[in-house]
Amino acid sequence: MQTTITLKTDKQNGLYDITAEVVSIISQSNVKTGLASVYARGSTGAIMIQENWDKSVQNDVIKLLRKLIPSGVWEHDCQDSNGDAHLKAGIVGASETIPITDFKPGLSTWQNIFFCEFDGPREKREIVVTIIEDK
Amino acid sequence: MQTTITLKTDKQNGLYDITAEVVSIISQSNVKTGLASVYARGSTGAIMIQENWDKSVQNDVIKLLRKLIPSGVWEHDCQDSNGDAHLKAGIVGASETIPITDFKPGLSTWQNIFFCEFDGPREKREIVVTIIEDK
Amino acid sequence: MQTTITLKTDKQNGLYDITAEVVSIISQSNVKTGLASVYARGSTGAIMIQENWDKSVQNDVIKLLRKLIPSGVWEHDCQDSNGDAHLKAGIVGASETIPITDFKPGLSTWQNIFFCEFDGPREKREIVVTIIEDK
Repeated sequence: MQTTITLKTDKQNGLYDITAEVVSIISQSNVKTGLASVYARGSTGAIMIQENWDKSVQNDVIKLLRKLIPSGVWEHDCQDSNGDAHLKAGIVGASETIPITDFKPGLSTWQNIFFCEFDGPREKREIVVTIIEDK
Repeated sequence: MQTTITLKTDKQNGLYDITAEVVSIISQSNVKTGLASVYARGSTGAIMIQENWDKSVQNDVIKLLRKLIPSGVWEHDCQDSNGDAHLKAGIVGASETIPITDFKPGLSTWQNIFFCEFDGPREKREIVVTIIEDK
Repeated sequence: MQTTITLKTDKQNGLYDITAEVVSIISQSNVKTGLASVYARGSTGAIMIQENWDKSVQNDVIKLLRKLIPSGVWEHDCQDSNGDAHLKAGIVGASETIPITDFKPGLSTWQNIFFCEFDGPREKREIVVTIIEDK
């Protein structure tokens, strides 16, 4: 089973919690034990597992990546001024693979699934969720 | 097949080699060709594939992450003083997916599987290993 | 189905586009919907999803990693002078898991699959591609 989550983003850099959508997709798949692969389409977005108690860690992720990967200093900026967004996406990574345990994602209490926007706002981002049953 | 490895950690920041446990789980699964997904529960831990000839690379990983992501300067620190641990975990990533080849993990000679502790010591860390057979 | 892509690299640090090889492997598998796991063997190489309009983003990836992870300052350098290569590989990560949609990788227009060489040139690098059908 494969489903695409679509998302509208409203910030240039921001984390968007997609845990509820993934929970729902896993539930519909009726897979008890297996894997949910979560993949960000678009080379300026990424997937990160992170805490969602409040916005603080999300803000810190953006702040850290801005410090490590400043904007406006990359060869690619001559094309479309988003060199930093590609680099952030490449470092964080396009995919995370999450266990399915007892019909639910095997996240711990403080783990949520986030789409990371690094070149927004965008009308439509796509995240592909693929469900696999274990042996 | 899905199995949870449990681990006690004794350092604030440290890498713990879980290769032998993953080898054993794959062997028990009796899967000849497929995938082993290794997933760190807890948003202040991560999974890294790395060399284990001696402790040098492990020490260097900790040193690098301390330099790039210092402690005590994050918005999240107002809550529980572990903002750096969340950021390290987010950058390294919660999951790695390793091929199973001939009933064994398809690691190269110098690749081992590590759980990365960024907010220890902890009495109990959980790593979920899910085994999938290929088509 | 599992296949190993082999690659000769000609630079110390460089990105090598392996998308065409992965497309071909998926096509041969005859899997309509599922996952392709792409795994870099060798603890000084990694897999990154990134744009391939021209060489600019690839050059920027190398430049960024050289800045964040300089060479010659690591404990591991006493052994074989490639401490930075191990750290780059660990941060970027050995694996990416890509959806298979309609017999093709579910990449967006600007996403390509790259093997990242951080300790070349090498006569032979191995990337293991494992194909899994969804439920």
